[in-house]
Amino acid sequence: MTRARNLITDVPGLRVGNAHDAALGSGVTAALFDEPAVVSCEAMGGAPATRETDLLQPDKMVPGIHGVVLSGGSAYGLDAAGGVQAYLRERGIGFAVREALVPLVSQASSFDLINGGNKDWGRYPPYRDLGYEAASRAGLSFDLGTAGGGYGATTANLKGGLGSASTIASSGHTVGALVVVNAVASAVIGEGPHFWAGALEEGGEFGGLGLPAHVSPQMRRLVWKGGPQPATTIALIATDAVLTKAQAKRLAVASHAGLARGLRFSHALFDGDTIFAAATGLKPLQNEAVEFTELTALAADCLTRAIARGVYEATALPYPDAQPAWRDRFGSPERG
Amino acid sequence: MTRARNLITDVPGLRVGNAHDAALGSGVTAALFDEPAVVSCEAMGGAPATRETDLLQPDKMVPGIHGVVLSGGSAYGLDAAGGVQAYLRERGIGFAVREALVPLVSQASSFDLINGGNKDWGRYPPYRDLGYEAASRAGLSFDLGTAGGGYGATTANLKGGLGSASTIASSGHTVGALVVVNAVASAVIGEGPHFWAGALEEGGEFGGLGLPAHVSPQMRRLVWKGGPQPATTIALIATDAVLTKAQAKRLAVASHAGLARGLRFSHALFDGDTIFAAATGLKPLQNEAVEFTELTALAADCLTRAIARGVYEATALPYPDAQPAWRDRFGSPERG
Repeated sequence: MTRARNLITDVPGLRVGNAHDAALGSGVTAALFDEPAVVSCEAMGGAPATRETDLLQPDKMVPGIHGVVLSGGSAYGLDAAGGVQAYLRERGIGFAVREALVPLVSQASSFDLINGGNKDWGRYPPYRDLGYEAASRAGLSFDLGTAGGGYGATTANLKGGLGSASTIASSGHTVGALVVVNAVASAVIGEGPHFWAGALEEGGEFGGLGLPAHVSPQMRRLVWKGGPQPATTIALIATDAVLTKAQAKRLAVASHAGLARGLRFSHALFDGDTIFAAATGLKPLQNEAVEFTELTALAADCLTRAIARGVYEATALPYPDAQPAWRDRFGSPERG
Repeated sequence: MTRARNLITDVPGLRVGNAHDAALGSGVTAALFDEPAVVSCEAMGGAPATRETDLLQPDKMVPGIHGVVLSGGSAYGLDAAGGVQAYLRERGIGFAVREALVPLVSQASSFDLINGGNKDWGRYPPYRDLGYEAASRAGLSFDLGTAGGGYGATTANLKGGLGSASTIASSGHTVGALVVVNAVASAVIGEGPHFWAGALEEGGEFGGLGLPAHVSPQMRRLVWKGGPQPATTIALIATDAVLTKAQAKRLAVASHAGLARGLRFSHALFDGDTIFAAATGLKPLQNEAVEFTELTALAADCLTRAIARGVYEATALPYPDAQPAWRDRFGSPERG
């Protein structure tokens, strides 16, 4: 069952904000937790760009963190978490160590440095300010497609973007996914309009085209950016379940299956594919092993759907020769 | 392009043998390398059963190993590698340390302990002898389906089994996959005959049904074994490319995407999903980064196809009330 917004913010306990710079061709998405959330992560790509991921491992001390950032900007983009920290500190939010307050914000960035935007930022990359701005806009609604951390995203053949989706488990827990789809390969089968995610689509959320009945050898040919060009799909999974940090780690690991199902291919040498998993901890699991297993399966599904939605909702960047969006190529069957 | 056998043994430099015990309802598959192969692995499931996997990590010393075993028997099945070692030692094959010879054989096992077979083996589980027998049968041809390490395998709704597939990269390298499909969830969409792998099928290798044009909410319902019952899909990827141990590790990691695409769902708490990746090292990469990336993508595809083939080729176990096989339910469109 899909929640009303079909966004990760259907999960009680978190808000999401976007910021972008059109001339830069990049942006930042910040997820802020109402209370410190139990978060872990798993980096599976060959070229990750991450910040504050070691502290998320189950053997590390910190019990909860305050936010997760998904951005463009590759390794430069990792400044964005600093902007989110500044925003949180101004509001008195952070991990208290006597009189010191340390907002804990983890981040993954994706490579969007050669998408036509102006990257000549000199000594101060703009990501710190974009991080602050994204945090200041955090709410329950946010844009998908060419927005936030997905503003500058591309795939091998169609504009990438920011995607999200949510669902409710049979236990009553909510689970949702947020993703920057900036893939080395493709979210669609061949050069056609059908998404790899097609079998999992809920209610026409990415065009309602379903699956192609026949997939020709030509449609199965590998489609990818083709050379040493980093890409990276990065995501946040969230649930209102009470999880241990080790369970959050397993949720992140298992959710990589959903990333794999939304793209062919993924987890490559030039990908930094990384997933954060957060538990806002409002609702304990009852039949723990069974309910947790269902949550991991549904989280993977949400991520697969979110990947398709990120591409489906995208619009082309405002530059000459910008990569076309899905809607430019295939129209919008539902919205006309 | 699919190789003649469409088996992992299309990769020059390795042979595969099966052994099973029908009363036991379990078996062993052994892959032996003609020369020590560069092998690494990645365990991503929540409940792995493995042997000699630490030495495969890129920071560890051993440059090459002699065999990889995929078996049933859960943690008991890990005796099988010892039988393969005995076989290799008798033939003077191993890592030489002065006058000592140590055959290095890595293994993963899957849980098939409650499939109807007789597991009352007393002090000596039969897996060691099955390992020896599988090694003694190693050749270029071997059976798929209810065979070897996949003999006792099940999925949530259809008999599991041993699968394999191969392909040739544009660089001329061969890549292949071997898998024991013993999944906590399902290889088919809903309760129908269509495989999740449908879009990647080559030449009717698992029935030629393609994809369903419409997937109803009922077909999208999660199908799984449902309780704390371990499962585990385990695989070996092989290529004739020259790879470093770190590249073999990345090949294993990236191939998990192929496991994810063949099953919904995978990588769960009760799964021990583990993949070995082996390079027989007969053919150097030229344009290294590009060729390696294509190899990882094709390896994932081979694994997805091999999963479907393992279920498609399976027959029911010879017990009353045994889980039905795909062919029992849906016939065999190609073989009548």
